[in-house]
Amino acid sequence: MIRYLVQCDDLKKYIKKLLKKLEVKLKDIEIVTGSLVEANLRGIDSHGVARLPMFYINRIKQGYIAKTSQYKIVKEFGSMSIIDANYGFGQVAAFKGIRHAVKIAKKNGLGLVGIKNSSHFGIASYFSMEAIKDDMIGFALSNAGPDVAPYGAIKSYIGTNPFSIAFPSGGKYPVVLDMATSVIARGKILLNSKKIIEQGIALDKNGNPTTDASKIGTLLPFGGPKGSGIGIVIDILCSILMSSPFGPHVKDNEKYSTDEVLSHLVGAINISHFTDLNNFKKNIDQMISEIKCLPTSKGVEEVFLPGEIEARTKEERIINGIPIENDLFNILQGLESCRIDKYEKLL
Amino acid sequence: MIRYLVQCDDLKKYIKKLLKKLEVKLKDIEIVTGSLVEANLRGIDSHGVARLPMFYINRIKQGYIAKTSQYKIVKEFGSMSIIDANYGFGQVAAFKGIRHAVKIAKKNGLGLVGIKNSSHFGIASYFSMEAIKDDMIGFALSNAGPDVAPYGAIKSYIGTNPFSIAFPSGGKYPVVLDMATSVIARGKILLNSKKIIEQGIALDKNGNPTTDASKIGTLLPFGGPKGSGIGIVIDILCSILMSSPFGPHVKDNEKYSTDEVLSHLVGAINISHFTDLNNFKKNIDQMISEIKCLPTSKGVEEVFLPGEIEARTKEERIINGIPIENDLFNILQGLESCRIDKYEKLL
Repeated sequence: MIRYLVQCDDLKKYIKKLLKKLEVKLKDIEIVTGSLVEANLRGIDSHGVARLPMFYINRIKQGYIAKTSQYKIVKEFGSMSIIDANYGFGQVAAFKGIRHAVKIAKKNGLGLVGIKNSSHFGIASYFSMEAIKDDMIGFALSNAGPDVAPYGAIKSYIGTNPFSIAFPSGGKYPVVLDMATSVIARGKILLNSKKIIEQGIALDKNGNPTTDASKIGTLLPFGGPKGSGIGIVIDILCSILMSSPFGPHVKDNEKYSTDEVLSHLVGAINISHFTDLNNFKKNIDQMISEIKCLPTSKGVEEVFLPGEIEARTKEERIINGIPIENDLFNILQGLESCRIDKYEKLL
Repeated sequence: MIRYLVQCDDLKKYIKKLLKKLEVKLKDIEIVTGSLVEANLRGIDSHGVARLPMFYINRIKQGYIAKTSQYKIVKEFGSMSIIDANYGFGQVAAFKGIRHAVKIAKKNGLGLVGIKNSSHFGIASYFSMEAIKDDMIGFALSNAGPDVAPYGAIKSYIGTNPFSIAFPSGGKYPVVLDMATSVIARGKILLNSKKIIEQGIALDKNGNPTTDASKIGTLLPFGGPKGSGIGIVIDILCSILMSSPFGPHVKDNEKYSTDEVLSHLVGAINISHFTDLNNFKKNIDQMISEIKCLPTSKGVEEVFLPGEIEARTKEERIINGIPIENDLFNILQGLESCRIDKYEKLL
């Protein structure tokens, strides 16, 4: 199967050119491009450049995502704040949000920022990891279009409601959990060209288990009632806490042609107010090395810490480039008359 | 099989008498008794009076849990605080902690309180639900003795690391998620007299799957790598964030005869600083009723919200009494020469 390898800087150039053609504001372009390419670098291809054609461009063109983010802080009190994203890019408002949370946490030990009237924000770890730069613990949660049935139900109600939390370490990789609360992220299914999915991931429209991606009626939450409960909790924290659309009321994103009002919650915990920062990092490093040394199950070569595989993939892709499948590459090579100029073709 | 039914007030009287004999401070007795009986009322029998014989009494007698809690607030800054539990009852320090978090949240919108040098704190929802009384979102996390193998490993490293989050509603039941991050709570296995457990819960000492409770070497995290990641995250947030013992360094609680230094993190989010409280409750009620109306899987009669089964069990047990199995009842009826005076015997 034909694939292409694109260096991350070349991919960035392409995305920037494309978003500029769509008249997206320059400052927004930086953040959205950063988020998409970071997803590709980390191997979360479902949330990278693959999202551009249908997901973002469709919505920008139809006016569901504002070309010029007019986000503003509408409330500020003690350690909390609310940002109105004004229907701009989720990435832009959430990035502003985590920076603001870090600022509050410098003053108060922690900061919690709600973001409403927003749109899809890409990978949650893009924001949680931003707090690491200031030696803080960062976290980010989002609701999403209704794609997941609560445990026991057969009809979608909650979203895949992702969350991420990131901890700085003293070593090579931080600890970064970034996960959807469905068994599998919806984007990963969209990207699956084989159209065959594993058992236990989804139900068809009649509520029966299906392995045919084209017949998916609803996705299942991860971890049974526990994961389902976490999905519900994230829905409440992101949306109901800010009187924003919740559950199926964020509207269906099936065709990416309706507006979808999402909400996020991002926060930062200032480690140095809890303990000595160096001691924190030293203990994280000890935990990492102890977990790496644990004996493994049959067939398992290595125990991975949250975010370790992604960080290693990034190291590799920075050197070798980002792989893009043939179909996607061909779509990208015509979009708004933009082209990826430099690439390597793999046969 | 013989069982007994004890009214909750009678069970409270018994526990108070017992703890008094052990010279536990009166104010601590109130909180510990409240936590244990609440667990029984909610149907979480693994964390109720069953814990007394080995778990608490052993440790009190050996001096691992201080009879007089000398907890104190050792740090206070902005929206965060740290309480040193001074090796007293986890319940007492965590209860103080959540009350303190609520107080901070009144002033700053949110409050986060770390509790170190603590011990087993019972059910996490006892603290998260405390914040509901002040119309706040409450949450509580704890690390625990090393009983769970991170995903891919076959040896315990993290604890069953439970967490709870509670949201007030306008209706009959609040939404209360309370869960261990292992497939099953360790306490539930301890309580399982059948000694046969389901597949996928545990591994034996050689790392092979086992269904024999007596052969458990380690428990498995819920939800594969995602649940494992959440368990690791809770370990870091509770322990490393306060430079407290983490992972296996909290010592093994296998025989309940060693000291075990645990840490917790509790917090409160002041809803009224984010949105109108009545609107919040109205939306929670709408979400509850919409989820309850979803079509169900074959064989599933009803979709339950987090905490709903527990709240219903409590209603029922307040009327009918708390069921106690024969073996446990007989143990309780001799403990420190204390007796449950009023009960109903079921044959």
